Amino acid sequence: CGAASQMDNGQPRFKEFPYASPAIKNLMVDLISTVENSLDSMLLPCTLPQDIQYFHNQTDTAHASLFLRSGSPSSPIDFILGSWLHCELPTGGALNITSLSSYMNNSTDAPHLVIEFIQNTPTSLVFILDLPHRKDLILHPHYLKTFYEDSGLENQRQLLNKLSEVQPYVSPSLYIRSVFSPTAVVLRIDTSSSGGERLEEILRDDVSSAAKMVLEIWLNLCVLGEKQGIQDEEKAYLKTRDSMFKSKSIETDIGSTLPRMFGQETADRVLSVLREII
Amino acid sequence: CGAASQMDNGQPRFKEFPYASPAIKNLMVDLISTVENSLDSMLLPCTLPQDIQYFHNQTDTAHASLFLRSGSPSSPIDFILGSWLHCELPTGGALNITSLSSYMNNSTDAPHLVIEFIQNTPTSLVFILDLPHRKDLILHPHYLKTFYEDSGLENQRQLLNKLSEVQPYVSPSLYIRSVFSPTAVVLRIDTSSSGGERLEEILRDDVSSAAKMVLEIWLNLCVLGEKQGIQDEEKAYLKTRDSMFKSKSIETDIGSTLPRMFGQETADRVLSVLREII
Repeated sequence: CGAASQMDNGQPRFKEFPYASPAIKNLMVDLISTVENSLDSMLLPCTLPQDIQYFHNQTDTAHASLFLRSGSPSSPIDFILGSWLHCELPTGGALNITSLSSYMNNSTDAPHLVIEFIQNTPTSLVFILDLPHRKDLILHPHYLKTFYEDSGLENQRQLLNKLSEVQPYVSPSLYIRSVFSPTAVVLRIDTSSSGGERLEEILRDDVSSAAKMVLEIWLNLCVLGEKQGIQDEEKAYLKTRDSMFKSKSIETDIGSTLPRMFGQETADRVLSVLREII
Repeated sequence: CGAASQMDNGQPRFKEFPYASPAIKNLMVDLISTVENSLDSMLLPCTLPQDIQYFHNQTDTAHASLFLRSGSPSSPIDFILGSWLHCELPTGGALNITSLSSYMNNSTDAPHLVIEFIQNTPTSLVFILDLPHRKDLILHPHYLKTFYEDSGLENQRQLLNKLSEVQPYVSPSLYIRSVFSPTAVVLRIDTSSSGGERLEEILRDDVSSAAKMVLEIWLNLCVLGEKQGIQDEEKAYLKTRDSMFKSKSIETDIGSTLPRMFGQETADRVLSVLREII
């Protein structure tokens, strides 16, 4: 969150990703730096309280960091939200979740951005990379064409799905399944049968390349691209839909894991701060 | 299409499924008889012209049959549409497509029904079984809950996807991907490595059981279930969305294959009859 909020008390900062593998850490640092440099003055400074920027549980087996920068009023960005979460598992391993999302405001109908890694074994993880649509794609074929058919997103999906270690991943939540666009990368990478080091290799080469390419498409097409005027009626529609999307996504994602890992009190504190901003 | 339209000139009738495998034929006959018996007076007789109920190409290498019954004005059914299509391939095999769909009208917002088999090798096929939603699921969580979370559809999807011969199928059309609900069965069954007879076995046991169960859910929940009043504004919304859904589905499905297989003249004749009804 910039020099002013550096934590000099020995606590890890968001962009340090202390529990991520080298490939995920390098990729996330690269993606966040690209987002911050490209959006620049479109983003306000991170104003999250220190005890939300980093927190842990009483037994020190679970650690998390949140990073949030709101968009400036004249930008098409509502806010960008980054997070990492590390939790030792009773079985001996650890669960690591690392994510970066950007939510748009209703000055545009362009898609949001979601990048997420969910890893609970050393040799496999779930990877999500998508620009979630903000309109019903059946009712809006032009929207489907602009953002999905003509954008090149499908190439990235196909490249990743060709890897022999890759399987489609189906979320247990039907709501989460509904969020994803038709070109969403939603997959499990399992390298347990091809040697552990293949995972870092796939992350460093294939996954990093796809994530950087999708981020570039999102920046050019959705954020910095040509603006079309959004009518008042549509603004109201987007506001309602986005508001449901944000609260339900954060509730499903953070609201379901935090109480178990950090206790109800910490979870309530984090969620109440997020709810105020969101 | 009932006794009045029986073809006694030696041409195959829709319900004969002359090119389907025994398991697909038995299942389709069973499903259509269940639909017709359950809906009964909700359906008007089939009024398709004879030369649309069955047609073939000049060289007799492609054959097709269509079956359409409109819903009565007081029913929630717009129409049910069945089809089979057989086409000899230059490579020696044949392409067989067999489908049954039901489209709802705007007196209800309950999901449509789609069942389809696409087979172009003797040992593998694509199977689609879904109740496509008619509202944006992000904006309507209650709709998601009623028709998908609480209906038991997910069980059927999971049972089929557990089979070792089953892989998820991803349609090349982004539009078609957008049509499917989060519990859609969209899969490829490939038995080439486990012996050809496994395909008929899977169709007869697993696929038939899932299709009958999903049809029962659709009949009870979407057609015969409790009616809630649909407001005028929502009726207009459903009408617009359904109209785009129907024309685009039929255009993508029939419009893209018919000209290649039956020539432009036959394709135009079939599409113009369908467009009038739809």
